[in-house]
Amino acid sequence: MSAVWGRKVRYTIFGESHGVGIGIVIDGLPAGVMLDQTLIQREMARRAPGQSDLTTPRTETDAVSIISGLYQGRTDGSPLCAMIKNSDTRSADYAAEPRVFRPGHADYTGFIKYGGHNDPRGGGHFSGRLTAPLVFAGAIAKQLLTAAGISIGAHIAQIGDVKDTAFDPVAISETTLAELGKSGFPTLDLEAAASMRQAIHSAREQDDSVGGVIEAAVIGLPAGMGDPFFDSVESVLAHLLFSIPAVKGVEFGAGFALAGMRGHQANDSFVKHADKIQTATNNNGGILGGITSGMPLLLRAAFKPTPSIARQQNTLNANGDTEVLVIKGRHDPCIVPRAVPVVEAVIGLAIWDML
Amino acid sequence: MSAVWGRKVRYTIFGESHGVGIGIVIDGLPAGVMLDQTLIQREMARRAPGQSDLTTPRTETDAVSIISGLYQGRTDGSPLCAMIKNSDTRSADYAAEPRVFRPGHADYTGFIKYGGHNDPRGGGHFSGRLTAPLVFAGAIAKQLLTAAGISIGAHIAQIGDVKDTAFDPVAISETTLAELGKSGFPTLDLEAAASMRQAIHSAREQDDSVGGVIEAAVIGLPAGMGDPFFDSVESVLAHLLFSIPAVKGVEFGAGFALAGMRGHQANDSFVKHADKIQTATNNNGGILGGITSGMPLLLRAAFKPTPSIARQQNTLNANGDTEVLVIKGRHDPCIVPRAVPVVEAVIGLAIWDML
Amino acid sequence: MSAVWGRKVRYTIFGESHGVGIGIVIDGLPAGVMLDQTLIQREMARRAPGQSDLTTPRTETDAVSIISGLYQGRTDGSPLCAMIKNSDTRSADYAAEPRVFRPGHADYTGFIKYGGHNDPRGGGHFSGRLTAPLVFAGAIAKQLLTAAGISIGAHIAQIGDVKDTAFDPVAISETTLAELGKSGFPTLDLEAAASMRQAIHSAREQDDSVGGVIEAAVIGLPAGMGDPFFDSVESVLAHLLFSIPAVKGVEFGAGFALAGMRGHQANDSFVKHADKIQTATNNNGGILGGITSGMPLLLRAAFKPTPSIARQQNTLNANGDTEVLVIKGRHDPCIVPRAVPVVEAVIGLAIWDML
Amino acid sequence: MSAVWGRKVRYTIFGESHGVGIGIVIDGLPAGVMLDQTLIQREMARRAPGQSDLTTPRTETDAVSIISGLYQGRTDGSPLCAMIKNSDTRSADYAAEPRVFRPGHADYTGFIKYGGHNDPRGGGHFSGRLTAPLVFAGAIAKQLLTAAGISIGAHIAQIGDVKDTAFDPVAISETTLAELGKSGFPTLDLEAAASMRQAIHSAREQDDSVGGVIEAAVIGLPAGMGDPFFDSVESVLAHLLFSIPAVKGVEFGAGFALAGMRGHQANDSFVKHADKIQTATNNNGGILGGITSGMPLLLRAAFKPTPSIARQQNTLNANGDTEVLVIKGRHDPCIVPRAVPVVEAVIGLAIWDML
Repeated sequence: MSAVWGRKVRYTIFGESHGVGIGIVIDGLPAGVMLDQTLIQREMARRAPGQSDLTTPRTETDAVSIISGLYQGRTDGSPLCAMIKNSDTRSADYAAEPRVFRPGHADYTGFIKYGGHNDPRGGGHFSGRLTAPLVFAGAIAKQLLTAAGISIGAHIAQIGDVKDTAFDPVAISETTLAELGKSGFPTLDLEAAASMRQAIHSAREQDDSVGGVIEAAVIGLPAGMGDPFFDSVESVLAHLLFSIPAVKGVEFGAGFALAGMRGHQANDSFVKHADKIQTATNNNGGILGGITSGMPLLLRAAFKPTPSIARQQNTLNANGDTEVLVIKGRHDPCIVPRAVPVVEAVIGLAIWDML
Repeated sequence: MSAVWGRKVRYTIFGESHGVGIGIVIDGLPAGVMLDQTLIQREMARRAPGQSDLTTPRTETDAVSIISGLYQGRTDGSPLCAMIKNSDTRSADYAAEPRVFRPGHADYTGFIKYGGHNDPRGGGHFSGRLTAPLVFAGAIAKQLLTAAGISIGAHIAQIGDVKDTAFDPVAISETTLAELGKSGFPTLDLEAAASMRQAIHSAREQDDSVGGVIEAAVIGLPAGMGDPFFDSVESVLAHLLFSIPAVKGVEFGAGFALAGMRGHQANDSFVKHADKIQTATNNNGGILGGITSGMPLLLRAAFKPTPSIARQQNTLNANGDTEVLVIKGRHDPCIVPRAVPVVEAVIGLAIWDML
Repeated sequence: MSAVWGRKVRYTIFGESHGVGIGIVIDGLPAGVMLDQTLIQREMARRAPGQSDLTTPRTETDAVSIISGLYQGRTDGSPLCAMIKNSDTRSADYAAEPRVFRPGHADYTGFIKYGGHNDPRGGGHFSGRLTAPLVFAGAIAKQLLTAAGISIGAHIAQIGDVKDTAFDPVAISETTLAELGKSGFPTLDLEAAASMRQAIHSAREQDDSVGGVIEAAVIGLPAGMGDPFFDSVESVLAHLLFSIPAVKGVEFGAGFALAGMRGHQANDSFVKHADKIQTATNNNGGILGGITSGMPLLLRAAFKPTPSIARQQNTLNANGDTEVLVIKGRHDPCIVPRAVPVVEAVIGLAIWDML
Repeated sequence: MSAVWGRKVRYTIFGESHGVGIGIVIDGLPAGVMLDQTLIQREMARRAPGQSDLTTPRTETDAVSIISGLYQGRTDGSPLCAMIKNSDTRSADYAAEPRVFRPGHADYTGFIKYGGHNDPRGGGHFSGRLTAPLVFAGAIAKQLLTAAGISIGAHIAQIGDVKDTAFDPVAISETTLAELGKSGFPTLDLEAAASMRQAIHSAREQDDSVGGVIEAAVIGLPAGMGDPFFDSVESVLAHLLFSIPAVKGVEFGAGFALAGMRGHQANDSFVKHADKIQTATNNNGGILGGITSGMPLLLRAAFKPTPSIARQQNTLNANGDTEVLVIKGRHDPCIVPRAVPVVEAVIGLAIWDML
């Protein structure tokens, strides 16, 4: 495995940032599903570059061509192949030879792994652009999950040192998640959004970038989903979340904060609510013993700052010589806003796989 | 998948806490390896219960019987099955009927998932006891990795609100890791250890438990290991780490702290050191683009407090009736010290699989 | 993969012929199933050695110990580990050093693959004895399939040059399959059985062995099972059938005879029968386009003669020196009668996996 | 699994016969390989339709577009996606509504499996056209295997009742395999080829089709390849061979003929030849205990007659009504000649995976 993920549905991803195109093959979808094109377009648009002054000015329409797997507008049971052509490629931005290893990128590790044969243009297969087909696949997963009464949503929980308020771990509503989905910069606290935007602008003005945290929630999940020992809900979700370029931390429920708690604080008491078994608190983020409890599933993913920054950096080239690097190209000063639909997408893939 | 994990080597785990026994089948080991029994015994002893007044008084010798896969003391290329019999079982501790759902445990979710047929005694297959065969398998992985010049070590980074100093992310030494491996309560700062022990004692005296964080390091790794897009080093490690009961957060390198950083701080500059390409800092924890960089691999795993606490808790039983629960049994007031070799073990399995 | 097979259920096999024991871990069984011990015993007995003068006099009770996965007599959702101890081992029979490569066995290829570290006693992990845990697992699959209205049966279609009549490919009845299951030497034509027995006796008297063919049928299958492109019903069944030691050919429906047919003969016309869509003939053996048609599934597996024969053979040892080999040990002059439940078992595993 | 196959390399196939196109994603190729375009073109041409009066007049150039995975003409370590557009599609040939189930095809079983949503045009994803991307992938495997000293070749062993001579199981030469590869109708005996062509012509003249057998050989294999218990060389090869539409039987070495042999005839004696351990005969087809012996690997695959025949057939439609079917379209009276490179291709994929 590596370009292939999944059990119930198998996803095979392919493409390079500045090659012919990128895409995904989705094998195992139920037959007869009329794809929700509106949802697909909306999700693609949320991730697409060039949306605002906070994102890279690279413009890609990210129009998806369906090569196979659809017949008369419905899934036909055979593998669905979706392709997105690369249009706005500027290979000249990356033409240096010998290759210069950009700090924080996969340039060096990819060079070593593939003996210098990897496509260096825009990071090649390591580019964040590969998340576009994931978002497409995630939109299909979301459509299937919505039909099963399951909703996924997320907000920007932190940018730099600015924090949003957190989800109410017990009482997250579908309305809140739906509202967040409409925003290009989703936060629970609108003032936090303003400060976060300011933090991103400030980073850009200083030829710098900034990191952040995304908090996501899934509601409507049945209790009993997940396959420990090795395929706990946390394992499967974390596996996919850590496939997203720039994610360096993942936590569920109270996460790292649990380390500082006592058992009597951390334990979520079982209570009956409208004849349903629930927990009074939700420090475990809707997962007990690697299996869903029916409570809202809650997770947080930490993103490092975009490694492509305009300010001068010291580094090495493939000959081992010192280089002073000034990255030109077009880059997001903060990847987090565009990563929100990506996080939601991989959660969608993971949940559909486990359901 | 679920009881089976791995690609190069396949691990199949089985057993229940209070059944006949627990074990693991390891398929894909190289043939001709003379197992290092001393290492196996040491690792098993580090995880075993009943070591000190900080751990559960349940005594299990955890003696491993090899059923297959060894011939004349060496691996013979066929699947190695290792079994550990359960001896000190006290099923009566768990005999309640209808079942009472212990807060923070898998009792409720397992009940739902398996229609009430799961073995409730000591958590059954959900018990932390299942980590014993993992430690056995991890000891074999460690032996193989040591032969490849790779060392794994870990320390208790946090118990409750007491924190140890962190690994030096650039200059961790083999000596330090070896020293930590000899300790039953490994910390870098001895005074931190004393305070942590005090925090655990204090929790137990109050019929409570406490959580913590383990920080682990791997040194000697070659650059170029890992299989993105979907099997990044972070993905594979996190998958296994989140299989360990009680782990609720995982981060690599600076992890969640990266969210608060600027790009110029987070980026690790490439520098030449003794003719080797390294990075001057190591905020990425030895992983760039999902592939090892050759720098020390660094991760942290957050453990929630042991959910079994002696103090009175409100909960429900399988009929949905309210119960006031007082857990008797024998339980660790803090699982973290015994979890150190488990974290190291799963790291060993993951690294060997990717190498 | 190699010791692990399956998607819905994962089977992990382990053990050596003359080691401590053999066994299997079955992960993914539905919870709450009360195992049919009578069926398990019957199936194990059909495969067990020492049944008659036609089989090896090695006596193994093949008593199965359940190590895990059962609670109060029912499957509990966790991996079921079953072990069979080896009792009647005679390692001295195989003590030669340097190793002598028995013609037709895995002695040479296993020696090369495992660098001389494989267990040579009785073929080690390559022994036909490893089919015992498969038969155990197959009995569970049969029980589950019976509950779903699906029956599996088989007969000895050929021993040497003696042939049984073939199944009626359209009208196989459950009664016939049930009758065959009761026989230790199942044939449709009783006189064929007598001639076959004679052929086996004759081979043994001449210190020789003889091969054969098993024909199997599955009835009650729904139409629509199977996962082409790569996991056609034929692919999945053949994969498992070719795992059985000594199987060298597999065909479905009219199989190799189809090569000699014209299209108008080979095509099975669709007809309506009692309001159900069926085919008038069944040359395709119940599989069209890799998917079940609802007609009886029919296959045939060819077994080579037992390679262990008492007559003198020329061979080499591990030093490359010529040796004149006279195999002592205890061996079946024909493995086919004991292989009937094994063929049925792997069919059971495959069908349950695809259902 | 289903559209995805492989361990070392993962192949994901997609497309429908009369949709936008067909293709394959190949993940796990070594980086830095300059693809042998001549070999690829030759292999594609061998399989392509419209070659002669013996094949379907449908003309497809089968030009392969590489979407990803190549950089500067070499594999770059990321997934290689190859697409073939469909050009000469005539959907009108298949427009019947309600759908008419063509005997011998997947029309009925696909209809049931996918609830009537499968693409019926030309068999959709079930079409033999899907073997084109397999041949492309096989050409790459062949190139890699050739570099490792391994050659694959095949001939038409039987058409209807006309048989070619068989490979010499011990002394197959690279020259013979190379010669066969140059022929559009490869046989060892030229006169057999003439009779076979006559048999195909005769079938077509009678609005009929005819089946056949392909025998393949692999030479240059090292001893020790294969992963029993479950992934024996036979299992892996048969799995892929039975994915090829129309294959209904597979045998290795003497195959079904072994059923009629005595042990002393079937056993291949070990002998020393030029200081190499070989076997004097090769009834086991180069595989012992599921592992290669270093002798030529030999297998035979039986193909049923093309189910699409021009003569009138009785069948049913999706309403269950009787229909008299006359298939128009353009179809091969015998698929076997074009299937030779397909058989070689899947053998190439399987061998490279196990090497």
